[in-house]
Amino acid sequence: MNKALHLVPPAEPGLSRYASLAQALRARVIAGEWSPGSALPAESQLATEHSVALGTMRRALELLAEQGFIERIHGKGTFVRQGLSGATMLRFFRFDSGTGEVPVSRILQRSRVNAPAAVSRVLGIGTGEPVLRLHRLRLMGGQPRLFEELWLPLDLFEPLAEDDLSTWDDLLYPMFARRVQVHVHRALDDIGFAQLSASQARHLGLPAGHPCAQVQRSAYDLTGRCVELRITRGDAHAFHYTVNIT
Amino acid sequence: MNKALHLVPPAEPGLSRYASLAQALRARVIAGEWSPGSALPAESQLATEHSVALGTMRRALELLAEQGFIERIHGKGTFVRQGLSGATMLRFFRFDSGTGEVPVSRILQRSRVNAPAAVSRVLGIGTGEPVLRLHRLRLMGGQPRLFEELWLPLDLFEPLAEDDLSTWDDLLYPMFARRVQVHVHRALDDIGFAQLSASQARHLGLPAGHPCAQVQRSAYDLTGRCVELRITRGDAHAFHYTVNIT
Repeated sequence: MNKALHLVPPAEPGLSRYASLAQALRARVIAGEWSPGSALPAESQLATEHSVALGTMRRALELLAEQGFIERIHGKGTFVRQGLSGATMLRFFRFDSGTGEVPVSRILQRSRVNAPAAVSRVLGIGTGEPVLRLHRLRLMGGQPRLFEELWLPLDLFEPLAEDDLSTWDDLLYPMFARRVQVHVHRALDDIGFAQLSASQARHLGLPAGHPCAQVQRSAYDLTGRCVELRITRGDAHAFHYTVNIT
Repeated sequence: MNKALHLVPPAEPGLSRYASLAQALRARVIAGEWSPGSALPAESQLATEHSVALGTMRRALELLAEQGFIERIHGKGTFVRQGLSGATMLRFFRFDSGTGEVPVSRILQRSRVNAPAAVSRVLGIGTGEPVLRLHRLRLMGGQPRLFEELWLPLDLFEPLAEDDLSTWDDLLYPMFARRVQVHVHRALDDIGFAQLSASQARHLGLPAGHPCAQVQRSAYDLTGRCVELRITRGDAHAFHYTVNIT
């Protein structure tokens, strides 16, 4: 690769030298030079490639680690983040069935639909563009606990539109990474309370109108593209979340 | 002050040199050597006092800043954190009455009571020890929006047990700092869902049994002592919270 490509871009107004450098490194990750999970070259080599002092490179790498782009594993090196591993919706709920259990996933419905306006706005695609819509139930200890609606842009998820659903995993993000190379890197969860519609309630074995906690998630890949819109609903009485304020 | 007091304590197992140093600095803050809001001496002076290199002192100060003990204000220096300024319960709710408005506080009831077991456990005091219990309504645009129950350890809050309630501020934490030198430094907010009792509902102008979001807060001072237990309830339909997951 042309070494000149790796020079630090001229400092943007308001960006320190190491922040500009971090941007340049991020561009290399996004361009796919190092794939998620792979190791970055040694700090000294990166510093040489970008013609900066080792200390500057270290600060830039620290910044990328804070931003969740890379992770530094003590004694092993620096790696491009694999994508979210701990994005479980269970952070918002406490069910009887105990801890650590991965909910069983049951896809109730899969269809290609034209994105409604609200969905296309979040996904950043044109209204009416094709998306993959999923209805999904998640069970713990055999009990249905969460009902989910997902919208996935079809240009990224086409291979998952027709395949055998029995091959699907209980956790979607690792499967997205493996099957369609979509790495979810960041998610925004908007939490509110609502009431279950008759059909939502039926899936969860609750009466229509029962209070539910509702989590609207938008999930983003490394480039900042929204790759998933998901609405998760579960019994409001099982909702529980702790915020540490400093 | 005896300079020997400021030597870095022998490194504890698992603590790096700068983490030990951070502990030593924290001890000076807790001991009251620098009060909340006051400036710390220059880094170079602190480094001399503790007989460490400037770089080590800087890392220790960075750690304390990350932990929220101090804040570094560009061009001004390093200060002991004043305590929480942005701990508003409104982070969890969205009411019509718009943004930025500080809710009006109305103390409905103030009494000295013996701490029930659950309260004393959270406050870390003996069961039955005296606490100040408050019932408080918070209004926005003239509408009652949040109903709060607070329990405060009486040994810290005695001066607020008998004074004229009309002199109280709408925001409690700045008043706690000014009136009784209690600085809330950190808070844990446990969010759940419940239904309003008849009396809670009456205060909020809602029907009994109406769904509510319920925030149980435990608030801590610099030394880690729990100085407040508070339960805040508001209309579940006004609850809204966003979590950024990376």
